[in-house]
Amino acid sequence: MSVDSDGPLRLDARAPDFETAFAAFLARDRDSGADVDAVARDIVADVRRRGDAAVIEYTTRFDRIAVTPGTLRLSAAEIDAAASAAAPEARAAIEFAASRIEAYHRRLLPTDLDFVDAQGVRLGARFTALDAVGLYVPGGKAAYPSSLLMNAIPAKVAGVRRIAMVMPTPGGALDPLVMCAARVAGIDEIYRIGGAQAVAALAYGTATIAPVDKIVGPGNAYVAAAKRLVFGKVGIDLIAGPSEILVVADAANDPSWIAADLLSQAEHDEAAQSILICDDAAFADAVCRAVTGELKRLDTAERAAKSWQGNGAVILVPSLLDAAPIIDRIAAEHVELCLEPGPAETLMRRIRHAGAIFLGRHTPEAVGDYVAGTNHVLPTSRTARFSSGLGVADFLKRTSIVSCDAEALARIGPAAVTLAAAEGLPAHGRSVSIRTNRA
Amino acid sequence: MSVDSDGPLRLDARAPDFETAFAAFLARDRDSGADVDAVARDIVADVRRRGDAAVIEYTTRFDRIAVTPGTLRLSAAEIDAAASAAAPEARAAIEFAASRIEAYHRRLLPTDLDFVDAQGVRLGARFTALDAVGLYVPGGKAAYPSSLLMNAIPAKVAGVRRIAMVMPTPGGALDPLVMCAARVAGIDEIYRIGGAQAVAALAYGTATIAPVDKIVGPGNAYVAAAKRLVFGKVGIDLIAGPSEILVVADAANDPSWIAADLLSQAEHDEAAQSILICDDAAFADAVCRAVTGELKRLDTAERAAKSWQGNGAVILVPSLLDAAPIIDRIAAEHVELCLEPGPAETLMRRIRHAGAIFLGRHTPEAVGDYVAGTNHVLPTSRTARFSSGLGVADFLKRTSIVSCDAEALARIGPAAVTLAAAEGLPAHGRSVSIRTNRA
Repeated sequence: MSVDSDGPLRLDARAPDFETAFAAFLARDRDSGADVDAVARDIVADVRRRGDAAVIEYTTRFDRIAVTPGTLRLSAAEIDAAASAAAPEARAAIEFAASRIEAYHRRLLPTDLDFVDAQGVRLGARFTALDAVGLYVPGGKAAYPSSLLMNAIPAKVAGVRRIAMVMPTPGGALDPLVMCAARVAGIDEIYRIGGAQAVAALAYGTATIAPVDKIVGPGNAYVAAAKRLVFGKVGIDLIAGPSEILVVADAANDPSWIAADLLSQAEHDEAAQSILICDDAAFADAVCRAVTGELKRLDTAERAAKSWQGNGAVILVPSLLDAAPIIDRIAAEHVELCLEPGPAETLMRRIRHAGAIFLGRHTPEAVGDYVAGTNHVLPTSRTARFSSGLGVADFLKRTSIVSCDAEALARIGPAAVTLAAAEGLPAHGRSVSIRTNRA
Repeated sequence: MSVDSDGPLRLDARAPDFETAFAAFLARDRDSGADVDAVARDIVADVRRRGDAAVIEYTTRFDRIAVTPGTLRLSAAEIDAAASAAAPEARAAIEFAASRIEAYHRRLLPTDLDFVDAQGVRLGARFTALDAVGLYVPGGKAAYPSSLLMNAIPAKVAGVRRIAMVMPTPGGALDPLVMCAARVAGIDEIYRIGGAQAVAALAYGTATIAPVDKIVGPGNAYVAAAKRLVFGKVGIDLIAGPSEILVVADAANDPSWIAADLLSQAEHDEAAQSILICDDAAFADAVCRAVTGELKRLDTAERAAKSWQGNGAVILVPSLLDAAPIIDRIAAEHVELCLEPGPAETLMRRIRHAGAIFLGRHTPEAVGDYVAGTNHVLPTSRTARFSSGLGVADFLKRTSIVSCDAEALARIGPAAVTLAAAEGLPAHGRSVSIRTNRA
């Protein structure tokens, strides 16, 4: 184990102290420790109590804009005017991405069940869309049109009737590309509010904003805290941590390609994490040198360098194809397998825990951020062990269907009566026996 | 609107004050207000810090049993000895229920996606099981073998390799039926611990108990609070509130059958809620009289009567087939449609929000609690608006798969480069362009 002065942590799976060092690396907490719960709790309670008046006060204070109940919602003309300022090439790229996201997510739609079993019991499972979803879109620098598409399109595909979007507009400016993406996604209910106050308004409703059933979309620590607070009253999506990429690469790769991939997540945030797993120490050195070279051409170099040096890692393993247990323990948001097709396929089948897997030398993770069609909202911080990326399932719920006629109830009912008696729930048994014991 | 001295709330959808009264009824909070968070937080932190020693202290204190690290886990002989005390009829009923639950849940298994689209991009979605799940089983009176089956079997069907069960044993006694259900479900890793300390042990692990990836199963307020605290480190299932049943019945029903159904959920808990929707005031009166009669034969009458009088309701509507909007606003855990097959089917198709729907005059909800095959862990407290009952999906996660060759990347890559530039993420674009711009 060694730490290069301007490079990331290096681990060698053959070293005697690997298990200890690897476990310590996995246990690192990259989330900000900021305790914003108390502030978020006060804001949520205030909006719940005072509605629009509270929302307007917080919006004036935090976003420095003058709003009234009548101007909280953007007019169609405002949305169109902002969207029309988007460059034609960017608009075309948004439309291209949207069509691919829609096509992929349509394939994820589940099918209903409805069958009669051997005992004559009709059984089913029916999927219905949520009525209303709130979509949080961050303002300022983190206003990503791609995130809007990734959150809104699965909801539309699922059949959600109403999407209410909230987006803070610090200083009042609207991002042309975000407005363009909203138009492409078919969103026309947009409020110029953000923070915990926007989450509370969506969850509890105000005189101006009707409440929703679920709130999705990324936000800062206050937004995340507010989402946790309203969970139960409404559904929420996963709470995303800093981005992660794990690149598995053999020595046949161009080191600069791999360096570019590692930096593509490192540039998001100092807390992002980029990890290289390789089986060749000289190749690892070449990638690290290439990172230094690539950093020179990036406007985002400062953030990316801090992430790579502070949170990055290079893990040397004896065999890439046998690295699945290490990859599973990292359970990364994004895993690239930069290998020939055969080995990539083999290793992919051995990996159990990953948000998304990118196969082969020509599949940089960034295609998944924009145009592959798959969702870029993915589990971080090792939660891929138990959770999935955003999909149409997040906007559907399943209702069980059961139907017995007298004969079917006569067949399955007695066991229910026995179990109800055993559990000390006589009224459960009675509701069955009153129908089956014909006196 | 009127409140009978020994009857439930009565509402009439034709009354001028219906909307106000119905909204107030929906807004009632039936959850216990007990603030147990601070206690649960201390216990979780202590177990995280001190492991087995803390678990053993809390178990000695709360469950009054002497345990050591060596006896925290039940031996196979103990499980078998307890299970063998189950009555043969009850064992047979458990096996019958288990086989039906397994058969239904197998049908809920999703299928993987793997296809190549028109641009030559290979896209997929792969479902894999969680590695390890913790199953909480309440002790004492609420130790229900049916709940063990409903939680464990979907996990087994999903392919979960390890299920670690925890169950407090106040005073040391093991419930024969619960042990029998554990054997039938194939569970052999059982710890005699409960409360927040058991949740913490499962989430963080101790020297004796390996950590799990997700914790499911019902528990008291301390268990629920602990599950919320460890959420993020591990996954958790929905946090269940008091049971609910909504019975939609026409006047052709036998009032005593409907009364039995209403009481089958009322007997769970004083905070349970039973609601009758009907279109005939005389029939409503007959059902209320039948409830009084049925209560006389129940050992659980005291609880059931308190629930019915305190939280029950009778809602008179002009047309049952037009009652879907009212039913949807209640979004009940269980909905019975005690109607002829045609009208039941019609109304079922109009309902959007319900945990489970039971169709026809011979489908008491209790069959769903035990032997229908569907899951009895269902969303309560109006959360059926946005969430589903437990199923195999809760024990699976989905990994997206993307693969491009050079040609496919050349087709979809340029739009990604455009969007990355527009979003100010140059390294994202570079990871694509470095592969597509052949110098």
